[in-house]
Amino acid sequence: MGVIKQSEVTRTTISQGTSRYLAHLSNLMMVVIDFENGPASQPDPPHSHPHEQISYVVSGEINVLLGNEITHLRPGDIFTVPPNLPHSIQLLTPKARLIDAFSPIRQEFLK
Amino acid sequence: MGVIKQSEVTRTTISQGTSRYLAHLSNLMMVVIDFENGPASQPDPPHSHPHEQISYVVSGEINVLLGNEITHLRPGDIFTVPPNLPHSIQLLTPKARLIDAFSPIRQEFLK
Repeated sequence: MGVIKQSEVTRTTISQGTSRYLAHLSNLMMVVIDFENGPASQPDPPHSHPHEQISYVVSGEINVLLGNEITHLRPGDIFTVPPNLPHSIQLLTPKARLIDAFSPIRQEFLK
Repeated sequence: MGVIKQSEVTRTTISQGTSRYLAHLSNLMMVVIDFENGPASQPDPPHSHPHEQISYVVSGEINVLLGNEITHLRPGDIFTVPPNLPHSIQLLTPKARLIDAFSPIRQEFLK
């Protein structure tokens, strides 16, 4: 209770080469996303949501698109996404792991 | 704007061998904590706070104490801390990096 071990967790496949596992409380969610389908030739189509998001690059390199601004991020870097800001990423390496934190929680991820 | 690069960030020293950098929005905070003073012979004294917390182990190994339960965590593992639950960690390796997400934000970290 209160602990999620990577070695025991059930991952959810988001799309081919992309999977996640997550933990949440009432107002806070953390999602571990593994990408294994890079590199990509361009950023994914931007999307947005009313939730606040802060993401941390664990491994790999990405371009992050925040509004109209693109920034190259490496492990240890962070980006913040205010509510409703269009954003996306572009994988620059074959694999990457991101940690996405959200508040409120992404209810649709629990279905 | 919206991006924190590890190579450019100003770290805050929490105590000897422990430093952090962070990002936040209105209701969400992410803190990167680097520990370089391990291993420890026992868990730190437990503490608690009204904020929800979810933490991810980037590197190193720890024991996490949640209430009365101790669990050994490795990179990729997550623990959740509901409001006001006494918790602490024990470093099992010389170094470790944790990502702590909080909601609401830890206002005292901004002073």
